[in-house]
Amino acid sequence: MELNEKTLSSRRIYDGRILNVRVDTVELPDGCVSTREVVEHRGAVAVVPILDTDRIVMVRQFRQPVGEVLLEIPAGTLAPDEHPDDCALRELAEETGYRAGDLLKLFSSYLAPGYSSEMLHTYLATSLSKTEANTDADEFVEVVIVRFDDAVGMIGSGEIRDAKTICGVLMAQRVLSDERIRGQ
Amino acid sequence: MELNEKTLSSRRIYDGRILNVRVDTVELPDGCVSTREVVEHRGAVAVVPILDTDRIVMVRQFRQPVGEVLLEIPAGTLAPDEHPDDCALRELAEETGYRAGDLLKLFSSYLAPGYSSEMLHTYLATSLSKTEANTDADEFVEVVIVRFDDAVGMIGSGEIRDAKTICGVLMAQRVLSDERIRGQ
Repeated sequence: MELNEKTLSSRRIYDGRILNVRVDTVELPDGCVSTREVVEHRGAVAVVPILDTDRIVMVRQFRQPVGEVLLEIPAGTLAPDEHPDDCALRELAEETGYRAGDLLKLFSSYLAPGYSSEMLHTYLATSLSKTEANTDADEFVEVVIVRFDDAVGMIGSGEIRDAKTICGVLMAQRVLSDERIRGQ
Repeated sequence: MELNEKTLSSRRIYDGRILNVRVDTVELPDGCVSTREVVEHRGAVAVVPILDTDRIVMVRQFRQPVGEVLLEIPAGTLAPDEHPDDCALRELAEETGYRAGDLLKLFSSYLAPGYSSEMLHTYLATSLSKTEANTDADEFVEVVIVRFDDAVGMIGSGEIRDAKTICGVLMAQRVLSDERIRGQ
């Protein structure tokens, strides 16, 4: 089945700080014409930082688009030309004050591919050591250490309601329990 | 620690079909002023439809923002004033041609709370029966039935790289394995 759409033209709507917006006119597989609203985003990383095998270093942060403080794993937008691995180490240190001795890429995913180009790269960070937190001037985050099992429970209860955090915690749990099984 | 930001003013950038864009000027907890780019989205649902206990009904769909065909769970945007439960049943039937006998809400999550207000409600659908697929005029989707264990493997391999699908499949797996444990 032919699914691809062909871009006929593109209208720039907004060029901003962390995102741009355009509206594409596309030809559908059946030859009809439609429009697609696209948020351009240069991508981001998220990190599941594991402390002492059974705790996660998380952050609480106010999110203006949803008007509330969310409990999330550390994350941030890629700087221009920055490699995701470097970004993961940088954001972890900046937001939490932890340096990762080991970094394992878990997966990459599109967060909202219906309208956003953003790809998020998610990592597992272990062998953590304390350094100095140094957040961006306009970023206020509170570091919270959460037991791994509690974090999984907080997904079910709705206390954790950030998609990248849900994906990251559940995938990290799979990887860590596989490692434990192999280690036995 | 004070984390909340106060909205000082708001500038409308774009009012569109599935999203609007505005730029807010906010006062930070330390009294400084910054801007926040916000994509307004009225919310959506996603459904993990389980066939015969061990297969998932999925869809392949071209996504213009990322320029490729993705393998996803069925999903769609809420109609105005539509209840998420109704939307889940409607989107499942429209995209896949299956009617759900049982619908269980798994969780709600913000997909990209750094810049988007979108909340996604994710459901588990079981007791499926065949009906007629009836997609929107500008929506071309291909239905694919995937074994549950294969879907989990496709997250690790990168074949599945849509965040709502990763969250949904992993949470559904937890719920279903809990039910199996309780049922033993």
